[in-house]
Amino acid sequence: MLKEIKYNPIGIIRSPHKDIKGMPIQPSGAKGIGGIVEVKKKYAAGLKDLDGFEYIILLYHFHRCKGYELEVKPFLDDSLRGVFATRAPKRPNPIGMSIVRLLKVHGNILNIEDVDILDGKPLLDIKPYVPTFDLRRTKAIGWLSQKADEAGKMKADGRFR
Amino acid sequence: MLKEIKYNPIGIIRSPHKDIKGMPIQPSGAKGIGGIVEVKKKYAAGLKDLDGFEYIILLYHFHRCKGYELEVKPFLDDSLRGVFATRAPKRPNPIGMSIVRLLKVHGNILNIEDVDILDGKPLLDIKPYVPTFDLRRTKAIGWLSQKADEAGKMKADGRFR
Repeated sequence: MLKEIKYNPIGIIRSPHKDIKGMPIQPSGAKGIGGIVEVKKKYAAGLKDLDGFEYIILLYHFHRCKGYELEVKPFLDDSLRGVFATRAPKRPNPIGMSIVRLLKVHGNILNIEDVDILDGKPLLDIKPYVPTFDLRRTKAIGWLSQKADEAGKMKADGRFR
Repeated sequence: MLKEIKYNPIGIIRSPHKDIKGMPIQPSGAKGIGGIVEVKKKYAAGLKDLDGFEYIILLYHFHRCKGYELEVKPFLDDSLRGVFATRAPKRPNPIGMSIVRLLKVHGNILNIEDVDILDGKPLLDIKPYVPTFDLRRTKAIGWLSQKADEAGKMKADGRFR
């Protein structure tokens, strides 16, 4: 029932972040940083109507991550946390999710902004960001309570290379 | 460079929705509907600290979807839209994303609420929902502008079976 699942990348994400070390750890720390999504030409027709959305959700593969630990020390903390309670890239299935600003669609190319994504990441999916579906108001953010706002100022070190 | 990517499900999602037909199409239409996430026991240690979060992001595989079209008629519309501008389950990589309310963690079991997910879906990843990272305010939601609020009242028909 729970068999291996296979996906084929639909494109690649291009960003100015060539190394994990020194890059912003969340889009909140990547404001104004531009990037490009190159969708494979055979999928370009699927981008129709996307240009009406200000934000899009990108799902991608953390291609530089090998292996994982079930408890990790996240960038924002000095304690070991369960990996599913963090956004650490080394996960059992290393899928990344970022919400970025969509500036322009031309053919199979998307210009995006607020990019906290490492250059060259294989893209798995694009979804429109819709507040009615995706926006939640909450203050219950566990161990991140005192720390989430710091993410905007913080740069990654090399721990997840 | 863009090779096939393989993932192994980390668990399974249990919900009262046994058939696509008649189920809510977004969490906004699934308020109060309970479900269970069964994480494989070998990953249970990764759930540590998750209980402090009110909302979690579930990534899962649309296991009943075979094939895809690059232009689809979404539930909320009568026009053909690019699949990446919709949340339709039949996608080149059929990955679903839902933000659900986390009620309780006990061992490898999560009790969740606001479940718009079909019973039996293979789970790929769990991430904490953190407004600083994930919340965007926008009114630019393209073709969904007049329609997103209706999603809460709408039930699925059989089109994506």
